[in-house]
Amino acid sequence: MNFSSKLLQEAVEAFAKLPGIGKKTALRQVLYLLDQPSDLTEQFTGALTKMKAHIKRCRQCHNIADEEICIICANKQRDHSTICVVESVRDVMAIEETGQFRGLYHILGGVIAPIEGIGPGDLNIDSLVGRINASDVKEIIMAISPTIEGDTTIYYISKKLKDFPVNISTISRGVSFGGELEYADELTLARSIMSRIPYQNKQ
Amino acid sequence: MNFSSKLLQEAVEAFAKLPGIGKKTALRQVLYLLDQPSDLTEQFTGALTKMKAHIKRCRQCHNIADEEICIICANKQRDHSTICVVESVRDVMAIEETGQFRGLYHILGGVIAPIEGIGPGDLNIDSLVGRINASDVKEIIMAISPTIEGDTTIYYISKKLKDFPVNISTISRGVSFGGELEYADELTLARSIMSRIPYQNKQ
Repeated sequence: MNFSSKLLQEAVEAFAKLPGIGKKTALRQVLYLLDQPSDLTEQFTGALTKMKAHIKRCRQCHNIADEEICIICANKQRDHSTICVVESVRDVMAIEETGQFRGLYHILGGVIAPIEGIGPGDLNIDSLVGRINASDVKEIIMAISPTIEGDTTIYYISKKLKDFPVNISTISRGVSFGGELEYADELTLARSIMSRIPYQNKQ
Repeated sequence: MNFSSKLLQEAVEAFAKLPGIGKKTALRQVLYLLDQPSDLTEQFTGALTKMKAHIKRCRQCHNIADEEICIICANKQRDHSTICVVESVRDVMAIEETGQFRGLYHILGGVIAPIEGIGPGDLNIDSLVGRINASDVKEIIMAISPTIEGDTTIYYISKKLKDFPVNISTISRGVSFGGELEYADELTLARSIMSRIPYQNKQ
């Protein structure tokens, strides 16, 4: 790119370091900010700086929080005897969006992936065991990606928890709702046949 | 979206104000910045703040500049008797990328679009006339989008310049290089037949 301004170039290059943002998109964003009143840039950079400086991780579940304990763990109305184990903050948000889960979460921060150099010690597994040891948890729901790494992680955690009186379940896997069978991949289809469930007549 | 943190929500909402960035993309960017060392956020917000505070518009051509006069207008090696009239900074960058033009530019800041409330007075047309009046300009190349608004703008400017001894040309329009005829739209194809050029045997 041919920049007529060093300041513009620096701003575009900083923007293009973000994931999924190429130089053309970065240029578009930067020129937009340049055209708008200064407030917008101030509000934008201010929100990012404030977030980066003050955001915390929940001491209990590792979710993003404004306090020591996140609003989900701090909520007495929720079922504290059920913990849903997920990989990331985004998974928590996706499950919360469904409105179907009223328990607590535990964010691992990823899955065991030896090829990428991520071992069990890099994940929040010890703190999960600690939570189960310290409180009256009855069920652990593993909401982990259905990949080899995900399955390995579930297996590893289930081994760690085998001496605790806690039920371990995984979220069901199968063909998506509204999805057409012919477009489902073979593995998903095969697994959804193997893990078939009894038909319940709802009438 | 279900945010467990007000700070996170504010950062995502600020990000989602940028053009073409939805809430999901904004969340992805913000979580990325959160995962990276503080340097990256500081560098990012710093570059934007600095740009917004210090960037200038070239007094002559309205291009983005670090000084009063942009590096293109300040370049004595370029042909100061030819001015290419464009809509935006991005057009300047696109033409510079080709390496085929060695004259100067003039950025209008848009085209005449009565429906959007943009009249000639909102564009840098008077300063173009002033430039032509004050210096020895021989040719004006109109590199404006081939739309009704673009054509109107070219017509308006050509009327304004009719008493000046200056040649006005427009960039050629037609089927793209490498494009297949059958996929060209009708208007483009019709115009490219009407404005056909004599075949020059290059051997």
